[in-house]
Amino acid sequence: MTRTVIASHSKTVTIGFDEPFCVIGERINPTGRKVLAAQLEAGDFSTVERDALEQVACGAMVLDVNAGVVYNSNPDPNQTEPPLMTKMIELVQGLVDVPLCIDSSVPGALEAGLEVAGGRPLLNSVTGEEERLEAILPLVKKYDVPVVAISNDDTGISEDPEVRFAVAKKIVERAADFGIPAHDIVVDPLVMPVGAMATAGRQVFALVRKLREELGVNTTCGASNISFGLPHRHGINAAFLPMAIGAGMTSAIMNPVRPVEMEAIRAANFLMNHDANGAEWIKFSRVLDAVKEGTPFPEASQASAAAGSGRGGRRRRRA
Amino acid sequence: MTRTVIASHSKTVTIGFDEPFCVIGERINPTGRKVLAAQLEAGDFSTVERDALEQVACGAMVLDVNAGVVYNSNPDPNQTEPPLMTKMIELVQGLVDVPLCIDSSVPGALEAGLEVAGGRPLLNSVTGEEERLEAILPLVKKYDVPVVAISNDDTGISEDPEVRFAVAKKIVERAADFGIPAHDIVVDPLVMPVGAMATAGRQVFALVRKLREELGVNTTCGASNISFGLPHRHGINAAFLPMAIGAGMTSAIMNPVRPVEMEAIRAANFLMNHDANGAEWIKFSRVLDAVKEGTPFPEASQASAAAGSGRGGRRRRRA
Repeated sequence: MTRTVIASHSKTVTIGFDEPFCVIGERINPTGRKVLAAQLEAGDFSTVERDALEQVACGAMVLDVNAGVVYNSNPDPNQTEPPLMTKMIELVQGLVDVPLCIDSSVPGALEAGLEVAGGRPLLNSVTGEEERLEAILPLVKKYDVPVVAISNDDTGISEDPEVRFAVAKKIVERAADFGIPAHDIVVDPLVMPVGAMATAGRQVFALVRKLREELGVNTTCGASNISFGLPHRHGINAAFLPMAIGAGMTSAIMNPVRPVEMEAIRAANFLMNHDANGAEWIKFSRVLDAVKEGTPFPEASQASAAAGSGRGGRRRRRA
Repeated sequence: MTRTVIASHSKTVTIGFDEPFCVIGERINPTGRKVLAAQLEAGDFSTVERDALEQVACGAMVLDVNAGVVYNSNPDPNQTEPPLMTKMIELVQGLVDVPLCIDSSVPGALEAGLEVAGGRPLLNSVTGEEERLEAILPLVKKYDVPVVAISNDDTGISEDPEVRFAVAKKIVERAADFGIPAHDIVVDPLVMPVGAMATAGRQVFALVRKLREELGVNTTCGASNISFGLPHRHGINAAFLPMAIGAGMTSAIMNPVRPVEMEAIRAANFLMNHDANGAEWIKFSRVLDAVKEGTPFPEASQASAAAGSGRGGRRRRRA
């Protein structure tokens, strides 16, 4: 049974075939967020703080931290990202207790994150590109952490799912050469937009099944990519996630501050028999009640989480 | 490739592995609907008319017609159901052009329906009970129609999916003895409430896959049963349907006048590559826009259908 163990100082999360779907919050990432990028350059971390707290309250079990901002004052990410990664990780793990996913294209930033992150963070990511394999796998081995493996290589992203499977297989084999077990590789089979490629959904479902059965690996994806460019894309996402979970997908890097997608995941967990007695569903249904009455989802989730932990709430957690 | 062909006088619907999910509208059924039952006894068919039009507008591709009312004036359904079935089918097929699903526990009502229904209706249902097999399969053969096969038998409904599979297999074999091919059997593997049986979802997904691979049959279910007794049950249904579709389920008997479930099905069709260029999704997204602005779903759907057919609308259907 494949189990990918991720941990913070105080909390362990297992990605696995018999575990609830692992939601990795994607929000702490300045890519495409100009306001956040400007804030980070100015040393203002208020959005990072809010994103950390909101995502965890809404159900993120792991938080991705990406420091990929290009400063106006210094355009070299090799210089700017490592210290910013250190700062962001220290900040986030001081605020919330969930494990972190250290996300960067800059190896120096990944290593800076590994130096300060407590527990056993998830590294994001290695690809099948030679240079990347040589730079990242030694870090994975040295720090004994699991890693996200994205199935593109030096030839780019193939539209052929067999090629993407072959790239994933190559990464798993190369990792084995370093003594890294398959259960520490979380493969991202790459989700194409279904609006651009009609077979995108079926490709992912088939690939996830094959990756699981033939390589024995856990899987993840950037879930929202499936609905890129389409109207009512949350409806597409909310069908895609349960279908991917049914096919065997075990995690996603996504925005958890979206009630529609989170409802779909919690329902799918229940239907996969990964929610004993529907306890999580019933707790979540109270959040949905509050949302229906007009409370924003993050606030309703925070109130529920506070009540659950006994902090200022009426109920105590029984677990 | 398994294809179950159903038809009205003027319209053919194919249930199949490579077809959009077939939504069979369940509303025209007095079971548990006291007002409708009283109306039918009084000869008032206004609710039936509204249910027929609304369900088709909302996306039902087939309409189930059930005349299972127990009259206060005459408690014998063997006397009351056949003429009521005749009347209801004549009414419904005069109003809408979709194929019908003739639904009764009374063989005389099924035959009355078969006598008047145009095209090739779906018969609902046979079970693995000996008496039922002997009563229904000759009708299926005589009228050359497809039939829903429910996987319970004289011992009742088994909680063991292997037993339910064996019952389905027995029905398929008995049908073959009558010269009825497997592609005219649509198996209902029976969906248990996940709130009462934690494995209910996984059972159905595994059974559907097995029924398809080993018996080559199409499948259907009473989809809403999965969420019986649970809060926010539409959220459970809206995850269950895409997961069932991903597992290979090809139809469901359900309430199509529910935007959440219909959105999930249309998204799943798109993700299964059963919606060329997302044309149906994009059309449906305009209905969702209208619903968001406050128009009730049936009205928004009717306006969209009218526009699509060129009756009083701005756009013409291109098909």
